[in-house]
Amino acid sequence: MKVKNISFRTIWPTADNTAVEIIDQTKLPHIFTTLRLDTMRDAERAIREMQVRGAPLIGVTAAYGVALAMRDHASDAALAATCSVLLASRPTAVNLRWGVEKMRDFLAPLAESERAVAAWQEAARIADEDVAINAAIGKYGCDIIRAIHQKKGGMVNILTHCNAGWLATVDWGTALAPVYTAFDAGIPLHVWVDETRPRNQGASLTAWELGQHGVPHTVIADNTGGHLMQHGMVDMAIVGCDRVTARGDVCNKIGTYLKALAAHDNGVPFYVALPTPTIDWTLRDGVKEIPIEERAAEEVTHIAGLCDDGQVRTVRLTPQGSRAANYGFDVTPARLVTGLITERGVVKAEAGAMWVLQ
Amino acid sequence: MKVKNISFRTIWPTADNTAVEIIDQTKLPHIFTTLRLDTMRDAERAIREMQVRGAPLIGVTAAYGVALAMRDHASDAALAATCSVLLASRPTAVNLRWGVEKMRDFLAPLAESERAVAAWQEAARIADEDVAINAAIGKYGCDIIRAIHQKKGGMVNILTHCNAGWLATVDWGTALAPVYTAFDAGIPLHVWVDETRPRNQGASLTAWELGQHGVPHTVIADNTGGHLMQHGMVDMAIVGCDRVTARGDVCNKIGTYLKALAAHDNGVPFYVALPTPTIDWTLRDGVKEIPIEERAAEEVTHIAGLCDDGQVRTVRLTPQGSRAANYGFDVTPARLVTGLITERGVVKAEAGAMWVLQ
Repeated sequence: MKVKNISFRTIWPTADNTAVEIIDQTKLPHIFTTLRLDTMRDAERAIREMQVRGAPLIGVTAAYGVALAMRDHASDAALAATCSVLLASRPTAVNLRWGVEKMRDFLAPLAESERAVAAWQEAARIADEDVAINAAIGKYGCDIIRAIHQKKGGMVNILTHCNAGWLATVDWGTALAPVYTAFDAGIPLHVWVDETRPRNQGASLTAWELGQHGVPHTVIADNTGGHLMQHGMVDMAIVGCDRVTARGDVCNKIGTYLKALAAHDNGVPFYVALPTPTIDWTLRDGVKEIPIEERAAEEVTHIAGLCDDGQVRTVRLTPQGSRAANYGFDVTPARLVTGLITERGVVKAEAGAMWVLQ
Repeated sequence: MKVKNISFRTIWPTADNTAVEIIDQTKLPHIFTTLRLDTMRDAERAIREMQVRGAPLIGVTAAYGVALAMRDHASDAALAATCSVLLASRPTAVNLRWGVEKMRDFLAPLAESERAVAAWQEAARIADEDVAINAAIGKYGCDIIRAIHQKKGGMVNILTHCNAGWLATVDWGTALAPVYTAFDAGIPLHVWVDETRPRNQGASLTAWELGQHGVPHTVIADNTGGHLMQHGMVDMAIVGCDRVTARGDVCNKIGTYLKALAAHDNGVPFYVALPTPTIDWTLRDGVKEIPIEERAAEEVTHIAGLCDDGQVRTVRLTPQGSRAANYGFDVTPARLVTGLITERGVVKAEAGAMWVLQ
């Protein structure tokens, strides 16, 4: 997608193929800057410090991390050490494990001398595969947006929560892929962006990437979506997800469930966009079976933003002595989900419809 | 309620009865400081600059504003001018009009020479009346909390949204009156405090006043309540309100509707606490009939907090160029409300039950 009218991915090899570059997402939305990753340690740090984030992008960065390591040391021992260093960078990220293990399984059978070149090509292939998956999600989701536009005959208002945009992937995004595809196709649309406390990925990342690409959007407090839906100001909701069960329960950023309830109460279609590997076929009841990560209280008690003096500063919001709790995700029961938008088409969120994706 | 172990109201006459004092609520939760209001203009400024806020407290401050004015000028013309200055301080505040008009109607028939003394007494009476109403709400609400405690046999977890605590009234609060009454009675309880974006009255005011009084509480992002309710971590919700229709639709701080939906979806009792004058008997369908105030976008795009250097600073959260929308309130349909806790008892949120309050 575009930044200042130039097409970017979130990660790309340098022109001379000696390193990869990324957008430093910890600086957004206030400062746009890119970083060069020369070594596996650079990639590991970028993941750990969340300069890259979003499940698909973490996976691809890890794959490039393995590729960077192979240039210096390509022995079996080096491969094993590389994988364990990278896996420890964000212990709970499923795609990190996926990206690292995919590289390991691909490289292990190869001769040491072949590994460096092959690893670089494989990392690039994994990145391209992510883009292709998201482009397909975009196409299927765009059909839904177009149908709403044709039925309604005007601007389509889409609500989204958190950031499941191109910044979370290599390009296009998951929840935002349909938005970009429809926007590029000239369908008039506007996005309501939940700021998504406590980490504010909506206000800082989704608003930024939509703005850079020129997509009309409005940031709202997370409290606002229900009111908008009551008054016919939302035509559909699209969110991403971290995990979906075999019967269609959706684990996503905390607060998704509340928006799904409001959508259901007001007859607003509520879609979840995902690559099919996000489905965990071993789980059924998401509320009972998916453990919810508790994160640092400081994400609730403090917030960072841009001061008048141009410095990004962190301020405390709560009184001294008040405890805070920070649950990172919630589970939206399948009954509240209108459909799952995948790279293989749109399916109902129920076991009987989902099995074709297995 | 208590601040640093000393009992406070939010507004009180000085010992020599020459002025009133207030808590400067714009400085909370980081700085506790009181302000002296010597003149009607001081009272007007305190309301306009939101050093006092909360419907009942605004009404009482306005009443004291009239009383302060009568000391200097007690003519009919001065009374009329005073009332119009105060009414303009927060144009949409219903209780402001109520407080000012109550004073005007009380003072108009009196001789000029009697007005100063009578006005002071009447303002004090209005303040005491607010305290009595809230104490009664506290008693009825405490009965509900006690019943849950007895049934459950342990800690009662109560979720609240925004600030309908003693800081919004003269003492006790509306939604928090039952909490304080139950806490003072020794019932074990814990409050989940929605931070309540965009103005964060939960994180800054509710957390502060609960903490000062010693009530166990935890601040959460507004996105969190649904998850907590899904996991049995909320036994009841109590919120305040700005307006209730004759059939029980509740207009309250934006986001209340989302919590009510989650409570309903999980069988959690959802109560609204209010003095009966909050009921607008001329309205029925709240979603259709109550206009929702749109406030400044800066409340969404910027936030103030305490910096490491001890200064309270405002930081920008959103990217340059991203629009924000700020709807102040939403309407919770009566079907989602378990009961209305009033100073005259607890009633169902439906026309047939509410008429006894008329």
